[in-house]
Amino acid sequence: MGESLNGLKRSIMCGECREEHIGQKLTVMGWVQRKRNLGGLVFVDLRDREGILQVVFGDEINEEAFKKADLVKSEYVIAIEGELVMRQSPNKGIPTGMVELKGESIRILSESQTPPIYIKENLDAAENIRLKYRYLDLRRPDMQEKLVIRHKAAKVIRDFLDENKFLEMETPMLTKSTPEGARDYLVPSRNYPGKFYALPQSPQIFKQLLMVSGFDRYFQIVKCFRDEDLRANRQPEFTQVDIEMSFVDMEDVLEVNERLIQRLFKEVKGIDVQLPIKRMPYDEAMAKYGSDKPDLRFGMEINNISEVVKDCGFTVFKGAIEAGGSVRAIVAEGCSGMGRKKVDKLGEFVKTYRAKGLAWVALKEDGIKSPIAKFFSEEEMNNIIEASGAKTGDLILIVADKDEVVLQSLGALRLELAKQLELLKDNNEFNFVWITDFPQFEYNEEEDRYVAKHHPFTMPKKEDMHLLESDPAKVRAEAYDIVLNGEELGGGSIRIHESDVQEKMFGALGFTKESAWERFGFLLEAFQYGPPPHGGIAYGLDRIVMFLSGTENIKDVIAFPKNQNAACPMSEAPNVVDEKQLRELGIEITAKEDK
Amino acid sequence: MGESLNGLKRSIMCGECREEHIGQKLTVMGWVQRKRNLGGLVFVDLRDREGILQVVFGDEINEEAFKKADLVKSEYVIAIEGELVMRQSPNKGIPTGMVELKGESIRILSESQTPPIYIKENLDAAENIRLKYRYLDLRRPDMQEKLVIRHKAAKVIRDFLDENKFLEMETPMLTKSTPEGARDYLVPSRNYPGKFYALPQSPQIFKQLLMVSGFDRYFQIVKCFRDEDLRANRQPEFTQVDIEMSFVDMEDVLEVNERLIQRLFKEVKGIDVQLPIKRMPYDEAMAKYGSDKPDLRFGMEINNISEVVKDCGFTVFKGAIEAGGSVRAIVAEGCSGMGRKKVDKLGEFVKTYRAKGLAWVALKEDGIKSPIAKFFSEEEMNNIIEASGAKTGDLILIVADKDEVVLQSLGALRLELAKQLELLKDNNEFNFVWITDFPQFEYNEEEDRYVAKHHPFTMPKKEDMHLLESDPAKVRAEAYDIVLNGEELGGGSIRIHESDVQEKMFGALGFTKESAWERFGFLLEAFQYGPPPHGGIAYGLDRIVMFLSGTENIKDVIAFPKNQNAACPMSEAPNVVDEKQLRELGIEITAKEDK
Repeated sequence: MGESLNGLKRSIMCGECREEHIGQKLTVMGWVQRKRNLGGLVFVDLRDREGILQVVFGDEINEEAFKKADLVKSEYVIAIEGELVMRQSPNKGIPTGMVELKGESIRILSESQTPPIYIKENLDAAENIRLKYRYLDLRRPDMQEKLVIRHKAAKVIRDFLDENKFLEMETPMLTKSTPEGARDYLVPSRNYPGKFYALPQSPQIFKQLLMVSGFDRYFQIVKCFRDEDLRANRQPEFTQVDIEMSFVDMEDVLEVNERLIQRLFKEVKGIDVQLPIKRMPYDEAMAKYGSDKPDLRFGMEINNISEVVKDCGFTVFKGAIEAGGSVRAIVAEGCSGMGRKKVDKLGEFVKTYRAKGLAWVALKEDGIKSPIAKFFSEEEMNNIIEASGAKTGDLILIVADKDEVVLQSLGALRLELAKQLELLKDNNEFNFVWITDFPQFEYNEEEDRYVAKHHPFTMPKKEDMHLLESDPAKVRAEAYDIVLNGEELGGGSIRIHESDVQEKMFGALGFTKESAWERFGFLLEAFQYGPPPHGGIAYGLDRIVMFLSGTENIKDVIAFPKNQNAACPMSEAPNVVDEKQLRELGIEITAKEDK
Repeated sequence: MGESLNGLKRSIMCGECREEHIGQKLTVMGWVQRKRNLGGLVFVDLRDREGILQVVFGDEINEEAFKKADLVKSEYVIAIEGELVMRQSPNKGIPTGMVELKGESIRILSESQTPPIYIKENLDAAENIRLKYRYLDLRRPDMQEKLVIRHKAAKVIRDFLDENKFLEMETPMLTKSTPEGARDYLVPSRNYPGKFYALPQSPQIFKQLLMVSGFDRYFQIVKCFRDEDLRANRQPEFTQVDIEMSFVDMEDVLEVNERLIQRLFKEVKGIDVQLPIKRMPYDEAMAKYGSDKPDLRFGMEINNISEVVKDCGFTVFKGAIEAGGSVRAIVAEGCSGMGRKKVDKLGEFVKTYRAKGLAWVALKEDGIKSPIAKFFSEEEMNNIIEASGAKTGDLILIVADKDEVVLQSLGALRLELAKQLELLKDNNEFNFVWITDFPQFEYNEEEDRYVAKHHPFTMPKKEDMHLLESDPAKVRAEAYDIVLNGEELGGGSIRIHESDVQEKMFGALGFTKESAWERFGFLLEAFQYGPPPHGGIAYGLDRIVMFLSGTENIKDVIAFPKNQNAACPMSEAPNVVDEKQLRELGIEITAKEDK
């Protein structure tokens, strides 16, 4: 049931009513946040996208409206005409709190059943229920705000890139399955039974082709797809801000992107990002923070103490170094008094990162306490303390193993300790850093070959070019990531535009000319016809909006997200389809759902 | 092979060089459009996105550069440093024609094989070759211009809608198969073997849910998908400008959209669209133009002459009227002398629209000529002439049949004649019209039931509401299309927000409550919780850009389009995939490609 507007026009949004409108006849429309009948008056809090306005109905204002207003319930949609007046008892907690509307007539546009979730800020309801009734969840002002921020962010990005002569260009959604990537979502073709399109994991190849075409500066805000098992903050479809430029080197790409980031955080969040954004080579990030996306809002850097323990009597340390590994430490400031149980838990924690154990040295006021103290002379122990950079009151935490294990486990331990010690509580810093000089390759043990760390079209650094064939592991790439507070916001590279470099690159990846063409044929073909020097970057928009709106849940910044099983409890996608549809596509179901 | 930039920076685009830059040292980069060696000088036309610049190399300018410049070929990518000077022999045909660059150094950034298609305006190459080498086809300045227009159009639309408080919101690409629509593209689910996502045909349901959520004003420029057999100017993936508003009626939607259209055509094309845009009810459009997307740039309206022939002796006319049909005519001005062969061909033409034949009356200076003259008295013939609105020198063309056949065939004949008679030659008019008052239903003979002409959530007109159950065929809808020069640019409607109206609507469509819920469950569920009055529109962006860029080929406004078989000759999508991928999805191929 419901009345219709019948030509009635809204004159103002609820949340926009202010003292300057007092005395005006206004028409507002929205949802009933709550209704109270108090002392012969009906008070309705009316909600729209802009906020909440109090409307008061009374016998003396309009008897008919008063009676009808008393019938409304939460989430009814109503339209009210009346005069805006000074509010009797002002509410300074809301922007409209100085005024109220005297309800002279009311129209009930639609009714509502009792909603299964409360429409209020910071709701603590089960995620499944929130997703099933997403349209109600999205009525919550804090949820709406996040999507308003998303709109603004996309708008600022587009404005900036347009001003800087980037053209937004659409690339295909129905494309070819990508080699060397994550798992593709496939789309069966009806015209070519037995063949499939793939949904794009990124427009990488297409944006490079657009550079070959001479479009010079391209961008796109675009959906991308990966059919991977979902971890927290991963969604099967996600939105990428994709950028590519011609006739540039890394400095050019970084420069324009720094201005983009500055503009974005200023306009949407009011934050001044200081330029230039600092840079850190990959090797330094790994050595100091055990991560290629270091959180620089706090110190607790990793220190290599191998040099001072390499000749010690403690076989665990000595053995690790002799096997080509290292011994490294982080210092938990003021934690010398940490209880044994807690320290043991940290030991368990590093084991999940393949460390065999965690050695510790507590520098208490009354002397050193450490289970490994007995293996060291006083001088050796002093050297360890000095090399770790610890002082009285601190706790030194040490891992000895292969470099990879040491760095990864101490990097994770560093973040874990920051959480436990609440080092980032009330920290409002936005700490950006470019990570540069990534390795060109990483060794894939399963396939027993080098694979591209970024992708096979990434330009090696000029000074490492001579190592492409002789020592691929040492080759660094013209690749860069932008990291904010320990999260990767985006990454990119300068691409190879010289065919001889590209051939060497494929050689290092173990491809023959034929197998390279089989995989990347149309891009390689295009590169025979004058590719310009080019490079670019891609950002995760969802991730950016999470920062801008202050949420740690990716689902909060997506209007209709999927759950952890890549399903939508609201629409019930994915779902069964008709036999006829499958017949037309020339496919058949061989395995039924067993979940 | 190729040199690298090595820090060299472009200082200006080729196409931007003007007399004001004379005397400056400039660095330009781009593609060699052509190279000539004339009288001891090498002339290179260098091309980038902004245009072409002449560069001259000579022994006396720089010998090394001169020699190297002589090595370059078409489509090589080069960088040149030099001084901009006044051009010896100005070329007023291009914007940079007053200047030229004295090439003091040259770097060959990459070489090019001889391209398989010419890089020049208005190329007349086979479409398949153009699509296979799309990256080269897109180097042509006229192709680039169209995609620049596309970028601008999307930007203007976004700016306007943002200013008018619309929020751009993304809706899912992986969603549920739609009932009652075209054929869906399906995406097999790995997490739920045997189940499928569908790619959206439009975000219709999601945008309505966003209105239920209270977002008030939504838009999105978004890819949509239909797996239909492709006709000219159809693509399997197309881009929609999707808009929805709350607390509005039709006038509100039309008003804001007229301003959007005005702004778009003004900013991108420099055309003043006069507001308000005229409106025409569906019935009038059909009666006068035999089409719900009439081209109003010329007259040649259809006239109903049933009244004056209903009692005549010509059984074809009389019979058609007695069977409930009609006799209608169009007048080809000044065509009384059209040859018999040509007229016969028009007769063949209307037969493809199921007309049984085409009667004609030629009003020659020396009297009437018509094969059907013998069936009519002089008075009857004069009545026909008068009812048709013909004058001496004209040719009357008449079809008698069921209304539907008469209108459709005469509507098509009208357009065909306009083409043959070149009525629109040199016509630069942009003739917009809103078609309103669409029928709510159309009868589907195959299913023997009424189906929604727009969609099942379209609001019937208030004054026709009482006919929903008794006479659905007569019910008109609050639906509207925007038509430009005979092409539909977009369409929309006010949606039903009252549950009782929605129930009657489903009744008229032959759904039980259960079957309606099965198909539209989550939208109906959402509507139980206070839906606001709302309505919207969706435009085809590709179609709009075709108008803005003056092309009749949809492929020209899409960077990487598919061919008529929904395939991409460049990427070779769709393609075969690994057995392993199919196994993971729990599907198997049953029919192999037989094309």
